[in-house]
Parts: sequence; structure tokens; C-alpha cells
Amino acid sequence: MQQKRITVAYGDGIGPEIMEATLEILQAAGAPLAYDVIEVGESVYRRGILSGIPPEAWDVIRANKVLLKGPITTPQGGGYKSLNVTIRKALGLFANVRQTKSYAPFVASFHPGMDLVIIRENEEDLYAGIEYQQTPEAIEALKLVSRPGTERIIRFAFEYARAYGRRKVTCMTKDNILKHTDGLFHRIFNEVAAEYPDIASDHQIIDIGAARLAAQPERFDVIVTLNLYGDILSDIAAQIAGSVGLAGSANVGMEMAMFEAVHGSAPDIAGKGVANPSGLLVAATQMLVHLGEAEVATTIMNAWLTTLEDGIHTADIYREGLSRREVGTEGFTQAV
Amino acid sequence: MQQKRITVAYGDGIGPEIMEATLEILQAAGAPLAYDVIEVGESVYRRGILSGIPPEAWDVIRANKVLLKGPITTPQGGGYKSLNVTIRKALGLFANVRQTKSYAPFVASFHPGMDLVIIRENEEDLYAGIEYQQTPEAIEALKLVSRPGTERIIRFAFEYARAYGRRKVTCMTKDNILKHTDGLFHRIFNEVAAEYPDIASDHQIIDIGAARLAAQPERFDVIVTLNLYGDILSDIAAQIAGSVGLAGSANVGMEMAMFEAVHGSAPDIAGKGVANPSGLLVAATQMLVHLGEAEVATTIMNAWLTTLEDGIHTADIYREGLSRREVGTEGFTQAV
Ligand SMILES: CC(C)[C@H](C(=O)O)[C@@H](O)C(=O)O
Ligand SMILES: CC(C)[C@H](C(=O)O)[C@@H](O)C(=O)O
Repeated sequence: MQQKRITVAYGDGIGPEIMEATLEILQAAGAPLAYDVIEVGESVYRRGILSGIPPEAWDVIRANKVLLKGPITTPQGGGYKSLNVTIRKALGLFANVRQTKSYAPFVASFHPGMDLVIIRENEEDLYAGIEYQQTPEAIEALKLVSRPGTERIIRFAFEYARAYGRRKVTCMTKDNILKHTDGLFHRIFNEVAAEYPDIASDHQIIDIGAARLAAQPERFDVIVTLNLYGDILSDIAAQIAGSVGLAGSANVGMEMAMFEAVHGSAPDIAGKGVANPSGLLVAATQMLVHLGEAEVATTIMNAWLTTLEDGIHTADIYREGLSRREVGTEGFTQAV
Repeated sequence: MQQKRITVAYGDGIGPEIMEATLEILQAAGAPLAYDVIEVGESVYRRGILSGIPPEAWDVIRANKVLLKGPITTPQGGGYKSLNVTIRKALGLFANVRQTKSYAPFVASFHPGMDLVIIRENEEDLYAGIEYQQTPEAIEALKLVSRPGTERIIRFAFEYARAYGRRKVTCMTKDNILKHTDGLFHRIFNEVAAEYPDIASDHQIIDIGAARLAAQPERFDVIVTLNLYGDILSDIAAQIAGSVGLAGSANVGMEMAMFEAVHGSAPDIAGKGVANPSGLLVAATQMLVHLGEAEVATTIMNAWLTTLEDGIHTADIYREGLSRREVGTEGFTQAV
């Protein structure tokens, strides 16, 4: 079978543990993958490279087109840039796709019926990272919204809805205050929505929209929104579905794509063998679908769900008393 | 008894109904208040006044120093300004205080134990409303954070915690991305927190902070944050406590203060006699405390709670089949 070559970055904190677990499961499931490993994060920052990624790593990433990445710890203090944001921008990964589902009753959740996808614009908004000191007392940051960037993400959301049989796209903005920036996003949403009469659409102001998401997530299907709102909404959705630890994230561009867990590097539990690899594993299945390996992805998701069902992983997967490697690999390998 | 003179603005949509209900209850409870009524909102916009408030109304508001305001509908389209924001800025109401409590079991909530206060900076951030078209394709908005504005709100939060016997203040920012603007807010938070050793303090990144708030609101006490985050967080908190319809909001400055419900003008149910006046009523009790009438405020809150307990108002207060005026006034007047 023809192997597909991807790039792998282990990352910081619990990154190495959960990446190892994920790669083991991918292999056990027979995913036809070959890996190039690049170094990113803490060890690179320590070498004085403020971006957290060595220049030569870009060639590897670009050649393979698909990157599977563990979480990164960006050092505090001036000068350091978030590597996540750098990668998204450098590779033109304009769409951030985060599906959140409740796995109740196997994972505790108040919202057993929820199954939604947040599609987040991934390059603009306040993430442009342009900040400056206007006076000794006042600092300003720029929020950027462009017509091409907005059109692209909104069209992506409707195409996604169509491709995955979803029925409704909800747009969230704060255009009662930000009439021009968020207003543009809302206006373009209305324009594009009109081209997709087969998909329902509506708009909610972000404050009440976030509140409804938190209280009644079952009522949402696809949400499309600006970068920062999407950041907040996707953590909310993941958390109330059961745990941020179970959510994966696809960062998609015209040519390239990067897959990662929604959660961070959790340095406090790193190296203890208690970290939950599920978020990265779910991201890896998104990656397999992207690579045209939907069958292997389904095998892994089923194995994972069976493992949850078997009670091997409860609400807090890989808790003390369960050795991560054994249970994880064991459970999944068997199911495969 | 010496009457205190306040300014009252009925507002749009359900505004007139819930204001009438609130004023009736205030009177029944013996609140020693006299009212000057000003016109704001739709009827003023229609006269071509883009601010939504007639110039002469400012003198009344400033003279009385305290304003009780119903919700306003800002017309869509360029030129119109949010009157809420205009009032906050014109009067220097730098602190927005929103307490959210679960009234379970009388109001359905997944979070019976929650009782938290969100203190939101009320003048800066993206609410400055400065937006401009940078190129034909790109629009920008300014996010402003100042040292004096930040110091003031954070100090306010710690003083509030001390005055109301609260134990912990949590700061939320996105300073892993906005290192200078949100970074300043976080830094000043740490500085000020050190002056209040009797109050615990911590910081959370807004995405995971909002997620934790949505999933485990019981773990929060006082939250202090920037304008836009506070806008989103306070709607989330109110909604998961039971309903945005039950939350009141105090906008406080050095000299003046404005009290309003957290919810909007709900034009779809306006005039039907089904609107819930609780949010405005709770805001009115905050106002009474502010005016030194804590006793009357307590009387009203007790009456209101008793009414909930009696099952007169269930999860959806003033639903069809219950005439708003009768049940509301009746229940409250009796309890008083
Ligand atoms: C780590 C951080 C830069 C990132 C973001 O804000 O996008 C994270 O919160 C996420 O959601 O992927
Ligand atoms: C109506 C709107 C301007 C206002 C805000 O964004 O502050 C509202 O959402 C609120 O929270 O009071």
C-alpha cells in the first residue's frame, strides 16, 4: 500500500506522551503513514529562536503538506510569538474546524444531544497581533476584517455543511457595536447564505449566542464566526460536551493543513503518564479523512468509542491507577 | 421621609411594560423615590437624533445622578450609535457590575450552587467604537487599553470583593495573543492583587476561563475582565444560572450610576404582557442599595424570592396564562 508522508511535531508538556499514544494507535489501525519529525516549541525557544520553529522545518512541512502537531508552551514575555498562530498564518490555514460531540453516557455531560461544528476564521481579527503604545498610558491593538478573508471562511462553512449533511449555519458577531468590522462579516454571511438555499442560516449577537451555546448547545449545528469569538466558543463547546481534552482541531488552507488537539500542553501533569491523548487522536482521525483515509479514521473512532463504552476510559480518561500506555494501546489495538 | 429623585427611561420593546411593573413594586415596597422621566430610544431615533437621546435629557440625568433605564433597540445601519454605550461613556460609568445567582430549585438550572459577580470594564476595549476602512477590502477596529482605566476597574473589583465579603477575584484576558493590551490588564491585576492580601486572586486565559465558567460556574466568585469579554461572560453566566431575564446590571462611575436589565428589548414579545420584569427589578434593587436604601432592597428581593418559591413564577416567569400585571404586583405587594 502506498504510504502517505506527513510531518509530526511532538510539542511540549504532555505533547510527547499523547503523540506517542496517538501514533501507536494509528499504526495499530493500519494507517498507511510515514512520518518526518520536526522539532518545535520549548527546546527551540531555548536556542533563542523566538518563533519556536527552526527555519529548515518549514521546508519539511511544506513538502508533506500535512502536519500533526502536539501542544506548545509559548514562553511568557515580550518577543515570543505563539507558534500556533505563526503556523496558521505562514501556511495560510484560514479555516479552523472544531467538531464537538457529547459522548454521553460514557463521558459525563449535561448535554447528551449536542453535536456541533465551530468553523472559525483563523488568520484575521485581533490575531493579526498588531499592538502599539499610543501614549505612555494607552495601548492599542488592531482588529482586522477583510472581505476576501471573510468570504472565504463563510463559503467554507456552507460547503462544509453541504458536504457533511448539516442543515444550518449560524453566524455570530458583535455587529451592534462593531458595525463596520463585524458588520462586514455579518453582511457577507447574508450574501453567501443566499447562495445556499438548501442550508438554513441565522445570525446571533455573540454575547447571547455564547450564552445559548453554553445553555442549550443541542440547538446548534454549524457555527461560523471570527477568530477570537471562535476561540472562546470552541473551548466552551468542548468543555460542556464533557472535556476540552476530547476535542480535535483541523486548521485547513488551500494547500496545506495542520491537525492538533484543542487543549494546551498542561505542563503540570506532563511526564506522569496520566495525560489524555483523545484530543490529539480525534484530530488525527480528522487528518485521515483529509488524506482520503476515511475508512481507517472510522475504524479508529469506533475503537475509541468502544473503549469509552467498555468503561475503560471514564470521564477522566487515563486517571491514576490506569497505566496510560497499556490501557490505551491495549483497548484500541483489540478493537482494531 | 425624604424622597430621592432619580431619572427613569422606559426604553423600547418590552421596556415600558417591565418598567411599569418595576415602578409599581418599588412603590408598593415603600421605596422613597421621586421620578423624572426622560424619553430615549426609538421615538428619539425617529426624530433624526442619531444618539437616541435628546440633548436636554442629559441635564436631568446629571442632576439626579441615578438613572433607571429600560432596554433600547438601536436601529440597524450606519450612523446610529448604541445608546447604552453612549450613556456609559458620557457619564463616566467605568464599572459594570453583574451579579448572577442560581435561584434553583425555583428556577431550573444545572448549577444550583452558583453565585458570582462579573465586574466588567465599561468604557475601553473595542467599545471605543473606532473603526475605519484601511483599504477597499480591509476594515480595522481599535482595541484600547489604558493604564488608568485598567487600574481603576481592578481596584474597584477588589474593593467590591472586600465590601461584600467575597473571597476571590479572577482576572480573565487573552494575553497569550494580545501581549501588550491584555498583557497590561493582567500585569496591573497582579500589581493591585498584591495590595489585597486578604482576597485570593488568580488569572485564566479567556477561552478556557469562559469554558470553565460555562461548565462549573460554582468555582467562581468575582471575575474582573475587559469590556467585550465581560459582555460575553455575563450573558453566559446569566443564562446558565437560569435565564438572562433574571439578571440586573449596575453601571457605576465616580459620581453617577445607571441601572438596567442585562437582557435586550425583545421586540418580538413587546406589548403582549408576557415579558419578565425580573432583570430590571433586580437592577432596581441594586439601585436602592446604591442609594442607601438597602432595607427596601432586601424587602423587595425577599418578596421576589418568595414569589418564586410560591411557584407563582416558574422557569419562564409571566408565561401565557398568567397575566403579568396581576400576578406580579399581587405576589410582590402581598409579600411586602
Ligand atoms: C494557544 C492559542 C494561541 C490558541 C488560540 O488562541 O487560537 C488556542 O487557544 C487555540 O484555540 O488553538
Ligand atoms: C446592547 C449592547 C450595546 C450591550 C453591550 O454590548 O454592552 C449589551 O450587550 C450589554 O451587555 O449591556
